[in-house]
Amino acid sequence: MPASYAYLGPEGTFTEVALRTLPEAATRELIPYVSVQSALDAVRAGEAEAAFVPIENSVEGGITTTLDELVAGEPLMIYREVLLSITFALLVRPGTKLADIKTVSAHPAAQPQVRNWLRAHLPDAVWESAASNADAARLVQEGRYDAAFAGEFAAARYGLEALETGIHDAENAQTRFVLVGRPARPAAPTGADKTSVVLWQRDDHPGALRDLLGEFASRGINLMLLQSRPTGAGIGNYCFCIDAEGHIADRRMAEALMGLRRICLQVRFLGSYPRADIAPGEARPMLPGTSDEEFMAAADWVARCQDGRF
Amino acid sequence: MPASYAYLGPEGTFTEVALRTLPEAATRELIPYVSVQSALDAVRAGEAEAAFVPIENSVEGGITTTLDELVAGEPLMIYREVLLSITFALLVRPGTKLADIKTVSAHPAAQPQVRNWLRAHLPDAVWESAASNADAARLVQEGRYDAAFAGEFAAARYGLEALETGIHDAENAQTRFVLVGRPARPAAPTGADKTSVVLWQRDDHPGALRDLLGEFASRGINLMLLQSRPTGAGIGNYCFCIDAEGHIADRRMAEALMGLRRICLQVRFLGSYPRADIAPGEARPMLPGTSDEEFMAAADWVARCQDGRF
Repeated sequence: MPASYAYLGPEGTFTEVALRTLPEAATRELIPYVSVQSALDAVRAGEAEAAFVPIENSVEGGITTTLDELVAGEPLMIYREVLLSITFALLVRPGTKLADIKTVSAHPAAQPQVRNWLRAHLPDAVWESAASNADAARLVQEGRYDAAFAGEFAAARYGLEALETGIHDAENAQTRFVLVGRPARPAAPTGADKTSVVLWQRDDHPGALRDLLGEFASRGINLMLLQSRPTGAGIGNYCFCIDAEGHIADRRMAEALMGLRRICLQVRFLGSYPRADIAPGEARPMLPGTSDEEFMAAADWVARCQDGRF
Repeated sequence: MPASYAYLGPEGTFTEVALRTLPEAATRELIPYVSVQSALDAVRAGEAEAAFVPIENSVEGGITTTLDELVAGEPLMIYREVLLSITFALLVRPGTKLADIKTVSAHPAAQPQVRNWLRAHLPDAVWESAASNADAARLVQEGRYDAAFAGEFAAARYGLEALETGIHDAENAQTRFVLVGRPARPAAPTGADKTSVVLWQRDDHPGALRDLLGEFASRGINLMLLQSRPTGAGIGNYCFCIDAEGHIADRRMAEALMGLRRICLQVRFLGSYPRADIAPGEARPMLPGTSDEEFMAAADWVARCQDGRF
């Protein structure tokens, strides 16, 4: 197994900064890839041990490129997640003033985050999409555009200066990243875990989705993300990417997944991994009747009834 | 009321082609706008009677720019929907051969639709995103890029020729467009209608979303779209854009919406309008016990019981 992590490059993006917060990243070679697809393909092909990619952000929701790659193709598994607060700096060539800026560039995902700021401060600037925020910074360095929205950390790398920092339209703007590898036994529960699955409905009838969600609800499992993604079979045909609180080693989660496996056309397990938003011990209390002990006691009681020993 | 429709421009895009399929478009002035936001703002400001914008496609799912505009701001209402099959042509300056193409351009939404074709036929071409497919065609006309993916109908307008037509990675690739105006009484039911709403949960607990969907399921109402959108309050905070089969004038839909109004933090009604995917008379049979007559008979029975007249 090569001791390297692929990540969505280029260098100097929020993805690299987020990846470097993982302790295990310090002992791996970190290799930038040009797209989420190519980073995940490197894992599937055995060229990298794992890939680190954005999967959700608080302004745009689920990152569909990443979700679609996890939904299709050879199965992969999520091992870790990282949350990073996102604020932008306006990077310019040294000496540029706000009044000089006619063109601004960034990755399209940055646009909704800086839209109001642009309207207020640079209403006439022309927006030019770039392949990444770091790429936008490079294009500013080369003189193609006047300013780039990127992380402040990108300024030094491209010989630019930050004319403004802390730019964000939404308070608490965060991006969630995941470390994705080939399937293996998930790490043991920490007490504050998350399980990701993809569900395909067997058929479409009133209550079909309600029934799927009931498999979680009836076992006291809270959902953290439900993102529909087209199956490609035409308008109205969706599968569902779901994040749920808990770990597949928990009895309640294992039973919910068994229920889904019975009633769904297909279920893809994407992993159980520690939550980045809370520490172990901070998880909300379980609903009464949904602990491992209660599941085991109930199974024991049914077995005794089946035996006539009640 | 000005007799004009705003639409997502420029001219020569799939949006304009879809809009022109509506009989009422023939009697209106059709005005292109540079963005979904500006087209909807024109309606909110009273400058246009309605706006015509894409809202969902079978490859990328819900179009988040449009959903987010309908979720926030002054309420608007959907009056009509149009489905259009999407296939691309590769447009070039006359005489250009496939081997000459070093750069290709289109709106980013086109990329997942032409990705496999590009990989097979132009693996080394550099992708350059444009503000729209028509804009990409214009940039090819001006010599900035070598080829554009756009509707074949755009070739004539920009003095280009179609080197290839019928390009689409997914079979049955369709985009759904909606005609949006200010709130008014919805048109009468046709027998094959759709109702769109946005739901905000009151709190987050196991089963919260299952309970919301139960309001539809328990009245035999099928869902056609469920798209989560971030509320802006941080990762994991979502509202839900839902399309359901039926019309707010149907008893079952009216009762479901009353139930949602009681249990949700907020419900935004986005309209009841004729379905574009099937004709009236082709709607699936209602579940037993969910017709207007049965709702009325049941209400009558409860009233009689309350009176002691059973």
